[in-house]
Amino acid sequence: MSRFTFLCVLTGVFLLASEFVRADDPLPSWHETATKKNIVEFVTQVTDPKSSDFVPPTERIATFDNDGTLWGEQPMYVQAFFVFDRIKALAPQHPEWKEQEPYASVLKGDLKSALAGGERSLLELAMATHSGMTTEEFESIVNAWITTARHPQTGKLFTEMVYQPMLELLAYLRANGFKTYIVSGGGIEFMRPWTERVYGVPPEQVIGSSIKTKFEMRNGTPVIVRLPELNFIDDKAGKPTAIQHHIGRRPIAAFGNSDGDLQMLQWTSAGPGRKLCLLVHHTDGKREVAYDRDSAVGRLADALIEAKKSGWTVVDIQADWARLYP
Amino acid sequence: MSRFTFLCVLTGVFLLASEFVRADDPLPSWHETATKKNIVEFVTQVTDPKSSDFVPPTERIATFDNDGTLWGEQPMYVQAFFVFDRIKALAPQHPEWKEQEPYASVLKGDLKSALAGGERSLLELAMATHSGMTTEEFESIVNAWITTARHPQTGKLFTEMVYQPMLELLAYLRANGFKTYIVSGGGIEFMRPWTERVYGVPPEQVIGSSIKTKFEMRNGTPVIVRLPELNFIDDKAGKPTAIQHHIGRRPIAAFGNSDGDLQMLQWTSAGPGRKLCLLVHHTDGKREVAYDRDSAVGRLADALIEAKKSGWTVVDIQADWARLYP
Repeated sequence: MSRFTFLCVLTGVFLLASEFVRADDPLPSWHETATKKNIVEFVTQVTDPKSSDFVPPTERIATFDNDGTLWGEQPMYVQAFFVFDRIKALAPQHPEWKEQEPYASVLKGDLKSALAGGERSLLELAMATHSGMTTEEFESIVNAWITTARHPQTGKLFTEMVYQPMLELLAYLRANGFKTYIVSGGGIEFMRPWTERVYGVPPEQVIGSSIKTKFEMRNGTPVIVRLPELNFIDDKAGKPTAIQHHIGRRPIAAFGNSDGDLQMLQWTSAGPGRKLCLLVHHTDGKREVAYDRDSAVGRLADALIEAKKSGWTVVDIQADWARLYP
Repeated sequence: MSRFTFLCVLTGVFLLASEFVRADDPLPSWHETATKKNIVEFVTQVTDPKSSDFVPPTERIATFDNDGTLWGEQPMYVQAFFVFDRIKALAPQHPEWKEQEPYASVLKGDLKSALAGGERSLLELAMATHSGMTTEEFESIVNAWITTARHPQTGKLFTEMVYQPMLELLAYLRANGFKTYIVSGGGIEFMRPWTERVYGVPPEQVIGSSIKTKFEMRNGTPVIVRLPELNFIDDKAGKPTAIQHHIGRRPIAAFGNSDGDLQMLQWTSAGPGRKLCLLVHHTDGKREVAYDRDSAVGRLADALIEAKKSGWTVVDIQADWARLYP
């Protein structure tokens, strides 16, 4: 073998070996920092039958916030874009909206005035656009929108603005016997049509805010109709109660990014045995938006203080994530 | 080989073969009737990738009523026995109950008078006994009761009065990739502590009636407190809406025994593709109680008419079940 051939073979073997290392790494979009080490150590310990931290597979429940944790939430929640698009689509059937706030401002494209009424305005807009149809009709509307609507700044589909490191984390946990749930302030039926395709999370593992529904027979066919009446807001203290209502078990791992997730992390953290509580801190003003305590959307202040006090894991996006989007 | 030896060997082989047949039969407590044939045919078709009725595993959702379908419900719901026992246990802390209906009648053992106020009385009794504690405290109370309380007539534990043929059906469906859910009018947190052990159904696959809850911090520890306020009654038209809310998919198989299950079966039956809708008809006055249209508990009238009209499968317990209890 010539020296050249030998070097080529050596290089080949080295490249092959590094390929194997890459292929073995379940979290390739995470830099080799303490954050990644915390995650891997937690998963290794709770899945090792010889560890005192071992947790049987049926109890490996992990809950993820959606907006700001699994996908972007700036400059406003994706579902707010959906609501505004629906208002425009439905406007021809509602000529009165031209004169009536907050609809009039939405139709003029003046989102700031439209949202001047705060949560109450947004709730009114959501009710007007999320009710009055059957569950199957609403599913079709969401599917049509989510496969075409694009972020105004990046031009990407919203489902292309999911965080690649979090996709890897979801898959890594599932490969280790975890059941992964979404627990979001967003509408439960707004998420279900696409979470299985995008996150690998099936509809029965999606928990969210909801409006009331009603079963009825229409010409001999049973339908479930969506009513303009609030059922449940799955945010803040609502998250742990929704987890108990839907899952009936306390998670052993919980992932969020804002004060809306604080109580979910507190509830998870207070259970017996080893836990992983993690906050995504949006520190990267270059690749996306850097924000925390002063942001109207996804405000992060109290939860960050508690994370430091309680030793929860905090993702520093700039330092911890090698890649943002798939 | 002597003729005797030969006969012995033959008999042995025959017995061995019949053992194998038994071992192969996933539903040994079901007689070989049309009912069993319907069930097996349905499961065979929806799981056969070459069949036009094939359903992918993720969509194989089966929902089971509990009272009267998976366990007995006569002379009254098991949870009513629990409520009455709790009233007696809590009486020393409520001296006023001695003079106050419906509590006074319960304490005198006069259940007929206690229930004279109908559902409203039962609801009041349930609220008084199911709220005011944390979710974990309630779980302990249910666990202590369910492992000791016995049926007044049979002397068996209530969890020994589950129907063996239905246990086999649950296991058979799961072995064929189905996710089995309980969808019951009973309390969701009254069932969850024991359904995994008894039915193999984990807490996150239990849907039921519920009261409201509240997350709060107690001396720095987060708890979820049960409030004396109704949240949802999971019966009749409530069942399909609860299925949509918790699962977000339409079942392809549904199992009930009373008019309270009619809408769940209608909703299941109206979906696309092959379905199995099944009613358990309590026809066996010898091994348990025969009842249908005239029973106050588990009334079966309209659903039986619709079953015949729509070709749903009806279990005739006397004719179809070789064995009742495990």
